[in-house]
Amino acid sequence: MKNAFYAQSGGVTAVINASASGVIETARKHSDKIGTVYAGENGIIGALTENLIDTSLESDTDIAALNHTPSGGFGSCRYKMKSLEANRAEYERLIDVFKAHNIGYFFYNGGGDSQDTTNKIAKITADLGFPVTCIGIPKTIDNDLPFTDNCPGFGSVAKYVSTSIREAGLDVESMAETSTKVFILEVMGRHAGWIAASAGLAAEKKNDAPHIILFPEIAFNQKKFLNKVKLTVKTCGYCVIVVSEGAQDRDGKFLADSGSVDSFGHAQLGGVAPYIASLVGDQLGFKHHWSVSDYLQRSARHISSQVDLDQAYAVGVAAVNMALSGENAVMPIIVRKKTKQYSWEIGKAKLSEVANFEKKMPKNFITKDGFGITKSCKNYLSPLIQGEAYPPFKDGLPEIARLKKRMVKKKLKNFKV
Amino acid sequence: MKNAFYAQSGGVTAVINASASGVIETARKHSDKIGTVYAGENGIIGALTENLIDTSLESDTDIAALNHTPSGGFGSCRYKMKSLEANRAEYERLIDVFKAHNIGYFFYNGGGDSQDTTNKIAKITADLGFPVTCIGIPKTIDNDLPFTDNCPGFGSVAKYVSTSIREAGLDVESMAETSTKVFILEVMGRHAGWIAASAGLAAEKKNDAPHIILFPEIAFNQKKFLNKVKLTVKTCGYCVIVVSEGAQDRDGKFLADSGSVDSFGHAQLGGVAPYIASLVGDQLGFKHHWSVSDYLQRSARHISSQVDLDQAYAVGVAAVNMALSGENAVMPIIVRKKTKQYSWEIGKAKLSEVANFEKKMPKNFITKDGFGITKSCKNYLSPLIQGEAYPPFKDGLPEIARLKKRMVKKKLKNFKV
Repeated sequence: MKNAFYAQSGGVTAVINASASGVIETARKHSDKIGTVYAGENGIIGALTENLIDTSLESDTDIAALNHTPSGGFGSCRYKMKSLEANRAEYERLIDVFKAHNIGYFFYNGGGDSQDTTNKIAKITADLGFPVTCIGIPKTIDNDLPFTDNCPGFGSVAKYVSTSIREAGLDVESMAETSTKVFILEVMGRHAGWIAASAGLAAEKKNDAPHIILFPEIAFNQKKFLNKVKLTVKTCGYCVIVVSEGAQDRDGKFLADSGSVDSFGHAQLGGVAPYIASLVGDQLGFKHHWSVSDYLQRSARHISSQVDLDQAYAVGVAAVNMALSGENAVMPIIVRKKTKQYSWEIGKAKLSEVANFEKKMPKNFITKDGFGITKSCKNYLSPLIQGEAYPPFKDGLPEIARLKKRMVKKKLKNFKV
Repeated sequence: MKNAFYAQSGGVTAVINASASGVIETARKHSDKIGTVYAGENGIIGALTENLIDTSLESDTDIAALNHTPSGGFGSCRYKMKSLEANRAEYERLIDVFKAHNIGYFFYNGGGDSQDTTNKIAKITADLGFPVTCIGIPKTIDNDLPFTDNCPGFGSVAKYVSTSIREAGLDVESMAETSTKVFILEVMGRHAGWIAASAGLAAEKKNDAPHIILFPEIAFNQKKFLNKVKLTVKTCGYCVIVVSEGAQDRDGKFLADSGSVDSFGHAQLGGVAPYIASLVGDQLGFKHHWSVSDYLQRSARHISSQVDLDQAYAVGVAAVNMALSGENAVMPIIVRKKTKQYSWEIGKAKLSEVANFEKKMPKNFITKDGFGITKSCKNYLSPLIQGEAYPPFKDGLPEIARLKKRMVKKKLKNFKV
């Protein structure tokens, strides 16, 4: 009987640990087929350095608590393995570790880059005579993976951002007569505007916030933007703007890189929100405030979407079931069913087709003026933020899993990554 | 029978509308003693310009919905009335409006500045022969009013900040090996460190985030700070910093004003978080991220504290009851009872003693090194964030009150503020 290896990769989310819990709980149900689930400490680096966490020593309660714990419970990393040609030693090391710990299943929980790695490992372990079943588990707040209708992790950010904009929009509206007239919220999404778009869900009625969304997909036009701000303040009395960190000019240069200089003369002190704020202040003279939610948005487990949580758990479960049914080099995906009420099921995609492809916002999701989202976009996004998956609270604060994280005894020599 | 006037003043909170609901619902229960409650559109400006919202036209359901609606439901303003000597016309105008609409009760929901105004109006209306019963209703996220154990609005920000730091702290910890090592969150509190202090509640065990809190009360010492960051990264692998927007150097200069320059050469692009981030980056070379929560923190009704909500409602109720029992120029306050389990009751303070006094953090609430909170501080803060007062959700988003806000017919000539 083979053991399994599970690792978290890339930027973490509010619900990636639910996928971990899905993997571990399902493997426990099949203890006749899967031995121990080892988790990589800090992702794939844990496999390379033989730093393996023995999840069998964690109680059922602690594994279940992962469902309400944001971040990467076993540690994640930003580390992309190179090609076999460029770094053969790393792949051989991986296989040494897998052999030493009798690992026959590899579950890799990450975005596009990570699934490229998963695919390579499937191929290379087979080529090198120690075939390991490799299953990708989708995760990214950026919502930019292909094939899957949406990505686990995104729905919770979307719920956080749309909720926050509804709340802050009311705040600004109620004080605009004598105070702040323009408020800017910067959100994540370096290459695709999905998160910025989700703010649009907050607007229920005409003139509700947000009034302007700046997408990476639409080249920033300063004149058009400033006119829209001026008009919105005139019409509504205030203007709420959501800007993606990936917003760029028509030459593809990020607005966030547009020349702020700190007291030492170093460039790039601020994000894009302060840049937009200074434009509004300097060019239009409106009193403004800005916010950068940064990691708060992707770790806000307290306002996670139930749909997102369910899907994150389900892809973890499905990954193990796929492995047990003999699949390899695939990834479970979310398939939106063609029902009147939103419903979904698990499908699958080949890793060879998933890897390194970024799904941007389709044109018909952005309004003609480039500053808002369309009805089609709302119809797509709205189901993903449904349901409040509140964590348990203790002493006024969310409870989190406190894993033991006992390390497996090393059998190999040290290896430097 | 006299009518009542209610107005919201200064920066709004997640629960100020619960005080409004407390006032209006209690007045409705005493319809034999109080006629209509008029709300000032945009605070006291609404009284001066005779823009009065007739709250009697709002349904009981809509008034109850104020309890789960952040922001100022009737509009708030930043407007401080001058002394009688400096602007006699404004006071005379107020009395004209009160006379025209038969207003005998004035309820003013705000911070220190506002209670100064309430006190002046009590005096002046009496002096000018049209005595109006004036009751202050405490509100400020800054928690800096005297006499009251704490201020309605603060507990919810404290819950938001401590929850966010617990969540984001886990995020940073889980990726620190290969990614961000230092995370900085900027919070409000221009003159007192109460909000920054509340982040300290997130730390349950040794080495939990936040590792450093920068208070306005403690002069910033760059060398000591950088040493602490370096040591924390060495010990914990990462460092989470919470900085008050009011953090200042030993000459009382705000760090936020410390010389960031935008692309046009204008000063003060950023807040204090990007300033601290650039220090950490330039001096220590650590990868860092920063967040500025700005209005998100004070409008985050979705994570309000139940204790805070209950107290905000209770001071609204108490204000009306005090008025009916013949009190004048007073403000209901929160009194912490000397019980083992936290409990509170309503007391009262004289407006003449409340006005224009800022309560800073006591020395024994800040640790000796100046970077953390003590056990006494935790004991004080913890009860204020208890209980999750979730708003109802619809379509995945918090529901808000949609008031009609019908204006009372004007009886007087226009008046320019």
